[in-house]
Amino acid sequence: MGDVLRLGLIGCGRIGKVHAKSIATRVPCAKIIAAADSFMNHDMEEWAHGMGIKDTYDDPAKIIGRKDIDAVLICSPTKTHTPLIRAAARAGKHVFCEKPIDTNLEGMTETMSIVNKSGIKFQIGFNRRFDHNHVAVRKQVADGIIGDVQIVKVTSRDPAPPSPEYVAGSGGIFLDMMIHDFDMVRFLSKAEVEEVYASGSVLIDEGIGKAGDVDTAIVTLKLSNGALAVIDNSRKAVYGYDQRTEVFGSKGCALVGNDTASLVRTSTVDGVLSEKPLYFFLDRYLESYATEIIDFVDSIVNDKPTLCGMNDAIRPVEIALAAGKSLKEHRPVMVSEVRKA
Amino acid sequence: MGDVLRLGLIGCGRIGKVHAKSIATRVPCAKIIAAADSFMNHDMEEWAHGMGIKDTYDDPAKIIGRKDIDAVLICSPTKTHTPLIRAAARAGKHVFCEKPIDTNLEGMTETMSIVNKSGIKFQIGFNRRFDHNHVAVRKQVADGIIGDVQIVKVTSRDPAPPSPEYVAGSGGIFLDMMIHDFDMVRFLSKAEVEEVYASGSVLIDEGIGKAGDVDTAIVTLKLSNGALAVIDNSRKAVYGYDQRTEVFGSKGCALVGNDTASLVRTSTVDGVLSEKPLYFFLDRYLESYATEIIDFVDSIVNDKPTLCGMNDAIRPVEIALAAGKSLKEHRPVMVSEVRKA
Amino acid sequence: MGDVLRLGLIGCGRIGKVHAKSIATRVPCAKIIAAADSFMNHDMEEWAHGMGIKDTYDDPAKIIGRKDIDAVLICSPTKTHTPLIRAAARAGKHVFCEKPIDTNLEGMTETMSIVNKSGIKFQIGFNRRFDHNHVAVRKQVADGIIGDVQIVKVTSRDPAPPSPEYVAGSGGIFLDMMIHDFDMVRFLSKAEVEEVYASGSVLIDEGIGKAGDVDTAIVTLKLSNGALAVIDNSRKAVYGYDQRTEVFGSKGCALVGNDTASLVRTSTVDGVLSEKPLYFFLDRYLESYATEIIDFVDSIVNDKPTLCGMNDAIRPVEIALAAGKSLKEHRPVMVSEVRKA
Amino acid sequence: MGDVLRLGLIGCGRIGKVHAKSIATRVPCAKIIAAADSFMNHDMEEWAHGMGIKDTYDDPAKIIGRKDIDAVLICSPTKTHTPLIRAAARAGKHVFCEKPIDTNLEGMTETMSIVNKSGIKFQIGFNRRFDHNHVAVRKQVADGIIGDVQIVKVTSRDPAPPSPEYVAGSGGIFLDMMIHDFDMVRFLSKAEVEEVYASGSVLIDEGIGKAGDVDTAIVTLKLSNGALAVIDNSRKAVYGYDQRTEVFGSKGCALVGNDTASLVRTSTVDGVLSEKPLYFFLDRYLESYATEIIDFVDSIVNDKPTLCGMNDAIRPVEIALAAGKSLKEHRPVMVSEVRKA
Repeated sequence: MGDVLRLGLIGCGRIGKVHAKSIATRVPCAKIIAAADSFMNHDMEEWAHGMGIKDTYDDPAKIIGRKDIDAVLICSPTKTHTPLIRAAARAGKHVFCEKPIDTNLEGMTETMSIVNKSGIKFQIGFNRRFDHNHVAVRKQVADGIIGDVQIVKVTSRDPAPPSPEYVAGSGGIFLDMMIHDFDMVRFLSKAEVEEVYASGSVLIDEGIGKAGDVDTAIVTLKLSNGALAVIDNSRKAVYGYDQRTEVFGSKGCALVGNDTASLVRTSTVDGVLSEKPLYFFLDRYLESYATEIIDFVDSIVNDKPTLCGMNDAIRPVEIALAAGKSLKEHRPVMVSEVRKA
Repeated sequence: MGDVLRLGLIGCGRIGKVHAKSIATRVPCAKIIAAADSFMNHDMEEWAHGMGIKDTYDDPAKIIGRKDIDAVLICSPTKTHTPLIRAAARAGKHVFCEKPIDTNLEGMTETMSIVNKSGIKFQIGFNRRFDHNHVAVRKQVADGIIGDVQIVKVTSRDPAPPSPEYVAGSGGIFLDMMIHDFDMVRFLSKAEVEEVYASGSVLIDEGIGKAGDVDTAIVTLKLSNGALAVIDNSRKAVYGYDQRTEVFGSKGCALVGNDTASLVRTSTVDGVLSEKPLYFFLDRYLESYATEIIDFVDSIVNDKPTLCGMNDAIRPVEIALAAGKSLKEHRPVMVSEVRKA
Repeated sequence: MGDVLRLGLIGCGRIGKVHAKSIATRVPCAKIIAAADSFMNHDMEEWAHGMGIKDTYDDPAKIIGRKDIDAVLICSPTKTHTPLIRAAARAGKHVFCEKPIDTNLEGMTETMSIVNKSGIKFQIGFNRRFDHNHVAVRKQVADGIIGDVQIVKVTSRDPAPPSPEYVAGSGGIFLDMMIHDFDMVRFLSKAEVEEVYASGSVLIDEGIGKAGDVDTAIVTLKLSNGALAVIDNSRKAVYGYDQRTEVFGSKGCALVGNDTASLVRTSTVDGVLSEKPLYFFLDRYLESYATEIIDFVDSIVNDKPTLCGMNDAIRPVEIALAAGKSLKEHRPVMVSEVRKA
Repeated sequence: MGDVLRLGLIGCGRIGKVHAKSIATRVPCAKIIAAADSFMNHDMEEWAHGMGIKDTYDDPAKIIGRKDIDAVLICSPTKTHTPLIRAAARAGKHVFCEKPIDTNLEGMTETMSIVNKSGIKFQIGFNRRFDHNHVAVRKQVADGIIGDVQIVKVTSRDPAPPSPEYVAGSGGIFLDMMIHDFDMVRFLSKAEVEEVYASGSVLIDEGIGKAGDVDTAIVTLKLSNGALAVIDNSRKAVYGYDQRTEVFGSKGCALVGNDTASLVRTSTVDGVLSEKPLYFFLDRYLESYATEIIDFVDSIVNDKPTLCGMNDAIRPVEIALAAGKSLKEHRPVMVSEVRKA
């Protein structure tokens, strides 16, 4: 590794571009020197060159094969994650991988073992762990201000539903959307999830129902320390991206609401009006995307553990699968029922 | 009925006294002329006379037997409610009865039939339906501002747990505490509860666990219109009585937090401090107790339906029993499973 | 004085009726036994009898002349206050008097001397000193949480302007409206006002300007401890009665905003809406009117000083007169310039 | 002008570095190619090269003399501003200049005339005009939601006082600190200030008093449209950088409070705690510094007027001088009294 950490970007879609921009503008000690995308085209190449990324490929293997690359950012579709992680680990390249790590647990133990043996740094893209608001709640827990955690509540509502086509291939609401919230529960409680009960409805788009999914869901969780947690998800909150967390414990309760574009409050004959939540996740969480990448680079440069590693990548997938099973079988499901030994 | 509605008070404990004071100071067109309590004693008599209540008895039947009494307020222990309601209805006296109407559903159909045939006004003491904050949320729903209701959330946490002895005789957290929240879900959603899943833990007082109950609970509900609801209860919030409701729907979301003794916010080197929630239910809901009695009297004087009648009294008991069954059997339970034909 | 404090009410207008109701419903140890009003008529008599007030007169002297009356509540027009206070004090009757004590300072020293010599309790009707919000700010100051007071800010805006006719006879905005705010500055800072600079405009109703007054005003004050204060007044805030106070000091800053009918917040496509301030002073300050009367009765019954006595009655009049002079002469005015020796 | 706007930076102190970083990371179409500082040293050179700035000088004239430079950023001490603006304008270079443009008005008319004749873009560094919160208030005014502006209030309190030495050379609180607030009043009201009354005290540091200045001030302003404004300043708010604005008008009132590091609210036995304001102006206003530079570059590239030009630079200096005169002469002062013809 030279003066500057050399990165390879795999996947040049929306989130890949977000990370590339963060690195270019916020991380002076790292540089993306190559980018790959299975659908690499002229526009992507132009974008890459504009970002100072010299080489572009349509085969990610080209990135992993380069000796001068220290780490890869995997931002390609979910089904490619596991093979790429394994290949990168075997090539000794540090890995940052977007969530979810996979939509099933086949071969996950082996992947984990490969990563662990390789000695590389691995970080999964649970960016909310780096969001100023959720971090502030976590700090209250970590500092003992909340006492023993007893109830965790997470609200997560999207401003607009995806298309039924997207839903059909997404793994469903628990793997596609609520997986962030499962991670939040683990992050905020510092406990593991043992049992899951999911209830769901199709209230927004019948097409989502026909695609075999629900668009509104409430999931109750039992944690290893006896605490209870509850998550509510909606695919459509007309007022914007609604993201709130709350931790209640023996000494108090910490909660955060939504960021807004400004704090202006306007009193008129109609009432007192303030701003809606920021409309989309790239507005609300843009800063957290930068912070997670800064932290990933820092973990390599200063040889520190990443904040969310392989275990944090796998556990929410297990919980999501248990939630799916609970919804289908209409009963509480132990996470251990879906876990692969 | 003369110029003034003549009331009889049955049960002179804490809540009976609250109602007596409301009537004396806030309801000029009604007057309590007699009070009964099985444990009538000198202190109670003194209190009654101080309130301008002329006659006192240790037998509630004396109240019901009086021709000059138009209506009774039943504030005696829960197990006496049903017999007193039946007797009062048969005597043609209007009834205001504290919640819960009963801890089981034995004979409830018959009680309902007796009340309905009698033509009396009946109101159950779900005072939160008269609280300015919850009413404001309900108004948003009723006015169509929220659109179709999709998610209802209720948080209800007490400042301090009752004794295990109390718990043992209370019917459990669902009948004793969460019954108000079941009513809130029905009130705010304008829908019926069809299915219940309860999870609970003993995190505050092991004595409560030994008494066969839980002190922390999250209950998920499926409503007749497909909407989902969730209630979280804790027997001990160190920061005071925490009572919040939220309704989310196709057009928006309405929520209310806690009333405080003042709105002062103080910024110092330690942060920005504001007041805790009002500490106890008599602080938070005092006004709602007055309003419910005013409304009860109004329904008699102006011959209008009461805001919460027999059906509203019985349904939450059913839901609470279903929740208890769910917790015990560790599965979702249909309310119809516990309902008496 | 017998078991119950016997009160005489002088002036049966809006505010007199508020006090009568407070006493009837909230002060069991006091009773209004007689009421007088120069314009006593059938409606007032009916109202009085309904409130349990036995005797009514059109001459206040009848009240003061009665041996069996312990204290009087002076709620008649401002110009009658001083003569009535003197007469009552000479007759040994405790006095509660509505604000302002007078619109000028002629003979004020003598009035004060008469009151002081008489040994009666005297309280001026600065009800905001009993408001839960302003009291909470004051408590922060009194408890030393704010440190040395450096800046005091008071906002006071009415929902709708009075008629120009009312304004013409009101003594002007400083005596009629801002006098409460001058009292607040003294109450919150625990310091005296030494210098006043007033600026004003006619922005709402030209009729108010023709009546020789302003409808919008900002007044800056220098206090005896070097602190600065500022008050802004408007005769018309379309969103309701806007009343806020703020105290800033060496250790922090305490502030309060407006009470609202409920805490509901509603998020829709249009934004996040919460309630307007309570519309009028009788909504916002109703409780404080009751508390001040309870406190007045308590000061008599338990022989304690009243919370706002003769000095607190006179000082704001001085400040208001200095403010008027400042506006007229377009220069800062020392309060000592208008003070009567 | 080539593909990229070439900038020269004059003054490499704290604020110069902030702008350089904004341009490097946020403004792809502009590049600083040279930097000058009278105290240019090895550290500054190292910093400049690290930022990709090729050439460094200790004489600003070198920057202005370069043909290949399109625009200059003047971030040097206040007394150098006017000569540099004139020189740059004569050389046909666009100018961004930090506030204040000067501490006196000598030759200001001529400077303005030179700038106007030159046809260059000129922007003064009133960054708060680009702050998301103040912009949101302004938008309410501009959109007519507030109606006719009647009262403007600005609070501006620093977290810690400067040294008396700094104060002595700063031009005083009105030119050094409140000048931003004078600009805010103009920005938010869209009116001109006609008259000023200043009151001040030394309550924080006697050294500031000995340096001939005050550390606590309240200034009342009369605006050209009859509206009133008031600004309060303190050199020391222990809870951080307190910056609030409020505009009240015939149709409503818009206000903003302080940004915080997070929105977490924590309820414990001690109360409900939320975060203090961001501590310093670089935390609170960092984004606005970037936005103003982006806007400046945009005004050149797309040939649009700047958002705050020469008039906006000069007027607040006039108001500040009038405020100083008012404090000294203890009377209201017309801005026209200090204006240079």
